[in-house]
Amino acid sequence: MTTSPVRDARAFKISELAERLGASPLAGSAVGLDSKVFQGASLDEAGDGHVTFIRDARHKKALEGTRASVVIVDEAMAADVAGRPYALLIHPNPAAAFARALEALNPGPAMPPGVHPSAVLEEGAKIADSASISALCFVGSGARIGPGTALLPGAHVGAGAGIGADCVLGPRSVVADGCILGDRVRLQSGSVIGSDGFGYAPDTDPAGEPMHRKVPQIGTVRIEDDVEIGAGSCVDRATTGETVVGRGTKIDNLVQVGHNSVIGPLCILCGQVGLAGSSRLGRGVMLGGQVGIAGHLKISDGAKVGAQSGVGGDVAPGDMVSGSPALPHRVWMRAALAFKELPDLLKRVRRIEKKLFGSDR
Amino acid sequence: MTTSPVRDARAFKISELAERLGASPLAGSAVGLDSKVFQGASLDEAGDGHVTFIRDARHKKALEGTRASVVIVDEAMAADVAGRPYALLIHPNPAAAFARALEALNPGPAMPPGVHPSAVLEEGAKIADSASISALCFVGSGARIGPGTALLPGAHVGAGAGIGADCVLGPRSVVADGCILGDRVRLQSGSVIGSDGFGYAPDTDPAGEPMHRKVPQIGTVRIEDDVEIGAGSCVDRATTGETVVGRGTKIDNLVQVGHNSVIGPLCILCGQVGLAGSSRLGRGVMLGGQVGIAGHLKISDGAKVGAQSGVGGDVAPGDMVSGSPALPHRVWMRAALAFKELPDLLKRVRRIEKKLFGSDR
Amino acid sequence: MTTSPVRDARAFKISELAERLGASPLAGSAVGLDSKVFQGASLDEAGDGHVTFIRDARHKKALEGTRASVVIVDEAMAADVAGRPYALLIHPNPAAAFARALEALNPGPAMPPGVHPSAVLEEGAKIADSASISALCFVGSGARIGPGTALLPGAHVGAGAGIGADCVLGPRSVVADGCILGDRVRLQSGSVIGSDGFGYAPDTDPAGEPMHRKVPQIGTVRIEDDVEIGAGSCVDRATTGETVVGRGTKIDNLVQVGHNSVIGPLCILCGQVGLAGSSRLGRGVMLGGQVGIAGHLKISDGAKVGAQSGVGGDVAPGDMVSGSPALPHRVWMRAALAFKELPDLLKRVRRIEKKLFGSDR
Repeated sequence: MTTSPVRDARAFKISELAERLGASPLAGSAVGLDSKVFQGASLDEAGDGHVTFIRDARHKKALEGTRASVVIVDEAMAADVAGRPYALLIHPNPAAAFARALEALNPGPAMPPGVHPSAVLEEGAKIADSASISALCFVGSGARIGPGTALLPGAHVGAGAGIGADCVLGPRSVVADGCILGDRVRLQSGSVIGSDGFGYAPDTDPAGEPMHRKVPQIGTVRIEDDVEIGAGSCVDRATTGETVVGRGTKIDNLVQVGHNSVIGPLCILCGQVGLAGSSRLGRGVMLGGQVGIAGHLKISDGAKVGAQSGVGGDVAPGDMVSGSPALPHRVWMRAALAFKELPDLLKRVRRIEKKLFGSDR
Repeated sequence: MTTSPVRDARAFKISELAERLGASPLAGSAVGLDSKVFQGASLDEAGDGHVTFIRDARHKKALEGTRASVVIVDEAMAADVAGRPYALLIHPNPAAAFARALEALNPGPAMPPGVHPSAVLEEGAKIADSASISALCFVGSGARIGPGTALLPGAHVGAGAGIGADCVLGPRSVVADGCILGDRVRLQSGSVIGSDGFGYAPDTDPAGEPMHRKVPQIGTVRIEDDVEIGAGSCVDRATTGETVVGRGTKIDNLVQVGHNSVIGPLCILCGQVGLAGSSRLGRGVMLGGQVGIAGHLKISDGAKVGAQSGVGGDVAPGDMVSGSPALPHRVWMRAALAFKELPDLLKRVRRIEKKLFGSDR
Repeated sequence: MTTSPVRDARAFKISELAERLGASPLAGSAVGLDSKVFQGASLDEAGDGHVTFIRDARHKKALEGTRASVVIVDEAMAADVAGRPYALLIHPNPAAAFARALEALNPGPAMPPGVHPSAVLEEGAKIADSASISALCFVGSGARIGPGTALLPGAHVGAGAGIGADCVLGPRSVVADGCILGDRVRLQSGSVIGSDGFGYAPDTDPAGEPMHRKVPQIGTVRIEDDVEIGAGSCVDRATTGETVVGRGTKIDNLVQVGHNSVIGPLCILCGQVGLAGSSRLGRGVMLGGQVGIAGHLKISDGAKVGAQSGVGGDVAPGDMVSGSPALPHRVWMRAALAFKELPDLLKRVRRIEKKLFGSDR
């Protein structure tokens, strides 16, 4: 297994790890609870000193061949471990417990507080003492950087922008002028917060020639707490007012969020999703990869949209839609399955017509 | 309403604003034409001292509840304003007039001429006296930066590139070696002009193994006047010759323009559009979000392509196509509407066959 | 023809060029084999002193009007050139020979070895003597940069990353902590290697509220020899273990490669392709533009996927699939062709039903 050489991996006794995770260790396996675990790995990759997990009982069989030292399972998978070559930790949510184990074992490099000499700070930028401003970063005039926040090399925070506490701005990420980030926001490399919205008014120039007149985009972006934004993703600033990404929402790579969109809390936007302007997403909306949402639509709480779908109308709470243009998911599924029958169906109808009307038509 | 705190908003008397826009003020409302307006806002957000607009008479009803001080409307909406809590400005193109009002009220931060000490200029770079080269920018040898042009922090202009007058290159945007920009071009953050085109020739290496041999991309990109290119969008340089983006064309975020494409003037490319190599777009072509255009196609003047469509053939002047593969828009619309009937249709044909032939088939 | 003014174009005698390419010159045309050729160009653009090529005999007619001095053709196109205004070079693979001619004629700017004073190197970064670290680059602690490798301005190599020999990292490209690149890898501008994978476990916070708990992404990315990655493309690091891009694979712009994907050698991924997590691509797989691959799928050796397709299941060796959801290519083609008949088909079935059952249904 390869893991990043730059993480400062720790080690815990299995009993300590169990306590940290609120998991119940099952004693009696060949691996004592005093044994050390120093890293997490997938079921396939795990070896000596590794913790892994099984999501639920359907994957129980996979336990057999594992070379992990500890496996996190749920109660339905609790078993007599006498003599087995791994310890079991029982936890109601093995996937989440594994995530927390990875977190505990891989605290990540500590970012030194302070400002690297190659960073450029404009007048009036306010940097918290515990913030870390890395090499080649830019912080504009009047911008605020909160405590514990790290700007990784080359990150850009524009004039008047406000970054909360404990954020991580990835290498070469951009927060444009006046945009606001809450606490614990993570921006992956190359993401752009606050690019101009795509707004033009059809007009004519002084010579009477047609032109697309730029509508100045004077609004901002507000990113709430615990949001993560993927590499290369873009959140446009509002024309007026603000574009909002709600608390705890997670956005994957290369996603486009149009100006004046308002995304609710706890949404999941997979890679390469595109939201046109003024989209409104409720709480916990899930959009599959490469989905497109037309402008000014409301995607309500808990709605789900299948990958590559094109949504041209509002989606009701809890509904799942798929297809382009999108249909209720089950309707789309049946139609998509039948699609390949179409050429055959044409032939069959021609045969029927011949029999019935004595001709093709 | 939240607007960017870093814009240096001005204020105008309503009568002054009307004059600037070439609009006719209707006197007599409760708001005198000497009152000050200092910002623009959408109809919902507007409050005291704000100007807003109504696109056309269909939205007339929305006027009733507004708290704006001034509303720009077209002649069809001119009305007796006696006693109303807002003034009316009459203009034949309210949306364009509003854009110009936003422009007048928000001149944006003045970029100081000169070169920031942290910027790196190679030998022979020619920077106009009135150009502004911000922190951490790079300008390669022999590159030219025109008067009034601003490179925002971290922008990159490669060797031998030429940037015209009054351009704005956003934070961390890239213009690669030898590429040419006209006047008043705007690049949003993270856009890339002049990346290598995607060209390989199937070949074998000295050991007889297959390989994809890179075709050197020695051409350039030429961006004409008044073009805007969105965040994260990429315009590839030509293999030989040049890739062209025509005058006044506007390109949204995360758009891919393949090598040797020639895009005409006044086109609109929405977010996440992809043009394969050697695409030729005429004048005023409009491509919806996530559209894909196969290589070597001609999309003629005034053609429109619906969102998410996949175009595999030329499109005639003024035509609108939709779907993947794309069909004439109306044909596609009817077929797309009928799509969900397909499973039912299969059943119905089976019933007919049973009746007619005594069996399913 | 416009070519980049910054390339240092050379000139060769036609006979010399032929020798370099392993091509056989046909003597006797009006252009002597001692004449100089200094640049390559497309058939349309080529002029005096230019070499061009014709892919195969289907394009033979295009020869007639050319103004090139030399044309590379295959044996089937060998012809009596007496009196013709261009020389012919015979080569079994004209496209590859042309690529090599471009390479020979355009060696590109030599990157000076050494570290630009504005670059930032952390402690313990190991830079080969012949490597070139341009302005405003960042190389983290413990990172290794191999001989002959060039980091163009603003490139970022994170702590513990390893870059092989003769690589080119484009302006503002990012290789995150701990990621590994082989030899002769090219990253275009703004590409990101090693962003965090998109992994969250559903969980509840201490207040009992639902949350998406981030699964730390502690794995890495390994890019093998001779890979090229396009502008703005993102390759996510693995949750644990590694994401792999195999030898000689070429990836176009704005492509998303999800965490733990393993891409085989010699694949071609066109623009805006998206691979969900844990995709496995075999050898020589070809994915058209805007294709989406769902998670945990196996796309076997030599498989091809048509542009804009959405793949929801494994693809067998050598198969070609198209559509969303994807079908065998021929099945999809026939169905896609029949799609526009659907509204008419509905009418015809209604007519039949009326005749047969005396009513619409």
